Amino acid sequence: MDKFMEAALEQAKKSLSEGGIPIGSVLVKDGIIVARGHNKRVQEQNPILHGEMDCLYNAGRIGTYKDTVMYSTLMPCYMCAGTIVQFKIPKVVVAESVTFGGARDFMEQHGVEVIDLHHEVCINMMQQFIKENTELWGEDIGEL
Amino acid sequence: MDKFMEAALEQAKKSLSEGGIPIGSVLVKDGIIVARGHNKRVQEQNPILHGEMDCLYNAGRIGTYKDTVMYSTLMPCYMCAGTIVQFKIPKVVVAESVTFGGARDFMEQHGVEVIDLHHEVCINMMQQFIKENTELWGEDIGEL
Repeated sequence: MDKFMEAALEQAKKSLSEGGIPIGSVLVKDGIIVARGHNKRVQEQNPILHGEMDCLYNAGRIGTYKDTVMYSTLMPCYMCAGTIVQFKIPKVVVAESVTFGGARDFMEQHGVEVIDLHHEVCINMMQQFIKENTELWGEDIGEL
Repeated sequence: MDKFMEAALEQAKKSLSEGGIPIGSVLVKDGIIVARGHNKRVQEQNPILHGEMDCLYNAGRIGTYKDTVMYSTLMPCYMCAGTIVQFKIPKVVVAESVTFGGARDFMEQHGVEVIDLHHEVCINMMQQFIKENTELWGEDIGEL
């Protein structure tokens, strides 16, 4: 697996080990990981900290995002995709979009390059999680 | 002024008094304010805490948003609009969209009702702020 996606997957596994939703992200700038994050809805009772948002929070005020790439274990939802568009992050690499289609079209319509690695390990991890935590997953994506 | 927008404006003024960007929000559920928030980019060095996001963070895990209305002193950007769409908040009331057009069309395309009060006090407050803090404002909306 791509080393950056490996780091995002580590974040997802960390979240799972904390009792949280297993979605992780890293932000890469000029070829270096500048921030990592994972979903913290459960851990911090925080509905806005999806993996990508936590990662951008951890990155802090880095100025322009034009040389960044967002890696995420799952296709971004509209919250995260809207942030990517607003911050002008030009490229997003996701491990999968089988378990959640997210807002790929929206990002592409706004000129964001989206690459889907279709990573079986991540698909299986999320499928298992959603099966065992259907209500929590529904809450996280606004399907209540 | 509408009492809910008055509360959002109080939040914007609070942010300004803290040295921050003067944008405030409140979330109303079943006719009651359940959370308040304001932009905290400067105060907490946090790029994801726009007024609306801080408000949703402060609201916590409230379950469905179907009976909520988001009040904001400024038209939401794509980050905040994407969150509103993902969380299925059905209605947004803004004080103004003269100083920032935001993502009104995107929200309306996704079925969100958007009301713009065109409030002169808020327009003047933001115009003055942007004039005096052009670079900071550019940073906040990803225009760097």
